[in-house]
Amino acid sequence: MKPIIAVRYLILLGWFISNFVYSYAQNLGRTDERMAYYCEPCGSACDLERHAGPGTCQHCGMSLVKRSVTIMDSLSRKQKNMKKRNVAIFIHDGVEILDFAGPSEVFASTPGFNVYTVSLTKEPIMSQGFIKVTPTYSLADCPAPDIVVLPGGNTGPFLKNETLINWITNCSKQAEVMLSVCTGAGLLGKAGLLDGKQATTFHNYIDALQAATPNAKILRDTRFVDNGQIITTAGVSAGIDGALHVVAKLKGLDVATQTARYMEYDKWKPNEGLVVESETKSTTVAK
Amino acid sequence: MKPIIAVRYLILLGWFISNFVYSYAQNLGRTDERMAYYCEPCGSACDLERHAGPGTCQHCGMSLVKRSVTIMDSLSRKQKNMKKRNVAIFIHDGVEILDFAGPSEVFASTPGFNVYTVSLTKEPIMSQGFIKVTPTYSLADCPAPDIVVLPGGNTGPFLKNETLINWITNCSKQAEVMLSVCTGAGLLGKAGLLDGKQATTFHNYIDALQAATPNAKILRDTRFVDNGQIITTAGVSAGIDGALHVVAKLKGLDVATQTARYMEYDKWKPNEGLVVESETKSTTVAK
Repeated sequence: MKPIIAVRYLILLGWFISNFVYSYAQNLGRTDERMAYYCEPCGSACDLERHAGPGTCQHCGMSLVKRSVTIMDSLSRKQKNMKKRNVAIFIHDGVEILDFAGPSEVFASTPGFNVYTVSLTKEPIMSQGFIKVTPTYSLADCPAPDIVVLPGGNTGPFLKNETLINWITNCSKQAEVMLSVCTGAGLLGKAGLLDGKQATTFHNYIDALQAATPNAKILRDTRFVDNGQIITTAGVSAGIDGALHVVAKLKGLDVATQTARYMEYDKWKPNEGLVVESETKSTTVAK
Repeated sequence: MKPIIAVRYLILLGWFISNFVYSYAQNLGRTDERMAYYCEPCGSACDLERHAGPGTCQHCGMSLVKRSVTIMDSLSRKQKNMKKRNVAIFIHDGVEILDFAGPSEVFASTPGFNVYTVSLTKEPIMSQGFIKVTPTYSLADCPAPDIVVLPGGNTGPFLKNETLINWITNCSKQAEVMLSVCTGAGLLGKAGLLDGKQATTFHNYIDALQAATPNAKILRDTRFVDNGQIITTAGVSAGIDGALHVVAKLKGLDVATQTARYMEYDKWKPNEGLVVESETKSTTVAK
């Protein structure tokens, strides 16, 4: 081979090598730029939060692992574009803390729900005599809910509040689910939404609710009763089961099971309530 | 009989009758004054609330029955004089709603506990991104607690807060019980209170807590671990079981069972945790 040809081949080889090194360096840079730390998927909103370095997620406690920012951003955009269901948790003076905290935890820990509190006004309310909560919305400016949660507690004074009962009636015209917990069933009854239906409530309120709503059948020893849109649960902690039932109904049993696992509510039994399938056919599962 | 004697007997009879009528009228008045309406005992604070007329208790839904005001006032005085245990529920920005609501419900629904919230300052905190709670006390003015509840959630930033860790350490010097829920165990660990002990936490935080507290043994698949003063629970809903365990320990299983029944938390199994009886002997009950 003539020296001039050897030199030309060497130049060509150098060109290829420099191209390869340049491309590798470019990709290397791009790779660093496109990776960040995210917690391992826990099914909670923190799944898509970006972290600067390794460690543990301060929300769910999962270890942080490197993931592609491009992919995670795309997931994030998809989640943002996904229609979220509005969940309005009605709170009032004397509301029982677990009545509203149970469903709040369930819906806030499941992707696809936009959860907020609403009260008669925006003034703070006192739950259980010592927990002062400032509602996000008043009845006047509350976004139209897809799911309305009516917790119980000292509901008596609110049964007479026409503005509230009208709000409940109006919500029921377009909401997918009206879920009462404990004595909150009284509010559904007052709005006429239990008429012709089966329902349940706090164990000590069953007789009073039956007397107040003679056109409904109020059931004892039933964790929840699902009439379709109208779902009522037994007292206090039963709101957790009722909310998980709603999640299972709207998003599938797998999603509800994942939420229950996240909450370490292994005690949940999916078929623990009464699902009224039609007016003549019903499936009862004993408590 | 002479008419004069008959008249005297009639006067005497009249005196007795008038005395009887006067006394009856007096008692009648006194009886009305001394009776009032109270709900049938439900084990909650409303048991001693006086109502003007018949109906149902707006807190617990029980029927109202007539009871002696004197007796109920005496019970009320006794309850007021009974030493109540102070329960401080520490809340912070990012606290998981059910983590603090579970124990709040348990202690507030059991007679003998004075429950309040405490935070770093008196500024409102946001739980779960949508529940705005204004704490009753700040660390600076918080009454000395007999029971400290440390819920979890986004606890990360608070692990570095020296004022908080010092407050936890100081509380532990006189408190009967330090109860952590979920990732709240990290705060106990940071204060050195888990050293040489067994503990548990949120299922996704076990490895991180073990790494942060090498002198403790962090257990999986355990609903709660009771070392005596230091009690740690698994995640989120397990705080309910931990608090019921504390009630059973301090006030007896009957009282705890009554609270669980009130909350319709029939799913509670009293021996579902690990009670560390001594350094060499322990009783484990599988989850």
